[in-house]
Amino acid sequence: MFRLYHVPLCPFCRKVRVALREKGLPFELAEVEPWRAGEEFRRLNPLGLVPVLDHDGLVVCDSNAICEYLDELAPETTLYGRTLAQRAETRRLVFWFDVEFRREVTDRLWGGKLLARMKRSGHPDSEAMRGGARALRDHLAYLSELYEARRWLAGDDFSMADITAAAHLSVLDYLGDVPWDSFPAAREWYARVKSRPSFRPLLADRVVGIRPPAWYDDLDF
Amino acid sequence: MFRLYHVPLCPFCRKVRVALREKGLPFELAEVEPWRAGEEFRRLNPLGLVPVLDHDGLVVCDSNAICEYLDELAPETTLYGRTLAQRAETRRLVFWFDVEFRREVTDRLWGGKLLARMKRSGHPDSEAMRGGARALRDHLAYLSELYEARRWLAGDDFSMADITAAAHLSVLDYLGDVPWDSFPAAREWYARVKSRPSFRPLLADRVVGIRPPAWYDDLDF
Repeated sequence: MFRLYHVPLCPFCRKVRVALREKGLPFELAEVEPWRAGEEFRRLNPLGLVPVLDHDGLVVCDSNAICEYLDELAPETTLYGRTLAQRAETRRLVFWFDVEFRREVTDRLWGGKLLARMKRSGHPDSEAMRGGARALRDHLAYLSELYEARRWLAGDDFSMADITAAAHLSVLDYLGDVPWDSFPAAREWYARVKSRPSFRPLLADRVVGIRPPAWYDDLDF
Repeated sequence: MFRLYHVPLCPFCRKVRVALREKGLPFELAEVEPWRAGEEFRRLNPLGLVPVLDHDGLVVCDSNAICEYLDELAPETTLYGRTLAQRAETRRLVFWFDVEFRREVTDRLWGGKLLARMKRSGHPDSEAMRGGARALRDHLAYLSELYEARRWLAGDDFSMADITAAAHLSVLDYLGDVPWDSFPAAREWYARVKSRPSFRPLLADRVVGIRPPAWYDDLDF
């Protein structure tokens, strides 16, 4: 049995939810507020962060450690690719989004607005917001360039690269922060990701007090 | 043939250098200054970051993508572990150091002093430095706790967890920033890492204008 400790609008948790569904592994969700979680949660992850996966008592922490674990556990439906070159390209893009995009965009926009609201701490820093919005456009341009040359972001197959990019963009899209109109190729790619059965449950998540834009859960946006 | 584009005092590049040597793969080093690198380097890595590995024309970017690539290429001497549980534990700690330790400690201390000096930009932010020094003590306490319960950080075997932690600590040690005296278990672990043949070449790196403390390359410190 898989039990995933998560925060619904967290991009790193969303990656794992989609990966579990893509692999057809049934799981239960346990919602936590890690910033308020006590000793019990810290026994699972001493860093006190989500996502944490409990697989029959084996505890795996960190979204990338979890996704690599799932891929080694159920390699038939690999989400990294079948060749060394393909796997290297998938991981390059996973870390592009999880490290650089996160630092330049997610932390500024999502961290400044949504996470601060959930934690009831701090106020958005408008200069950081503007920097985040600028960086988001650069990343969407790169994503479009990749998608125009390939079937999916890392190549012919849907992979962790698509899942990771879409997980980050989905929480920004909830805030209405993604300028899709200026990036039609990125929008087409995201519409294809959204229409996958693995992704749909994410679109039902809601944060009290923040309503997503009308197109958020529209598959033909 | 392996060619590694690197910055000598960069923790992420150091990880890859040690991993290549642990695996017994001969490689050549190409030193770059990514913050000044032009179009040619960006053709290898559009993010303009090191490390980048060129393996007979196949270009792999990002230290974790590279280390996973090397482990899949030469699985006999695995640096992640032989069981799923072991690999999950190794990766948990790799990301602990590459993401959390990096954000709380490396970026503040190493980024504020050494990287700023290499780039000739900015001035150290003394509040960030103090925060980094405090966080470093917390991380050393956790590392000590792990090492007191195990042979190496992730378990019985030397792994990417040791390499990653030591790579980050080695650049801080170059600056004389690691309070080893207060953490004897961490010091013992680091002395064992330093004495490995794979690690020694790192201790010969120097940055013009910054001399490391006397114990930096002393194996019996």
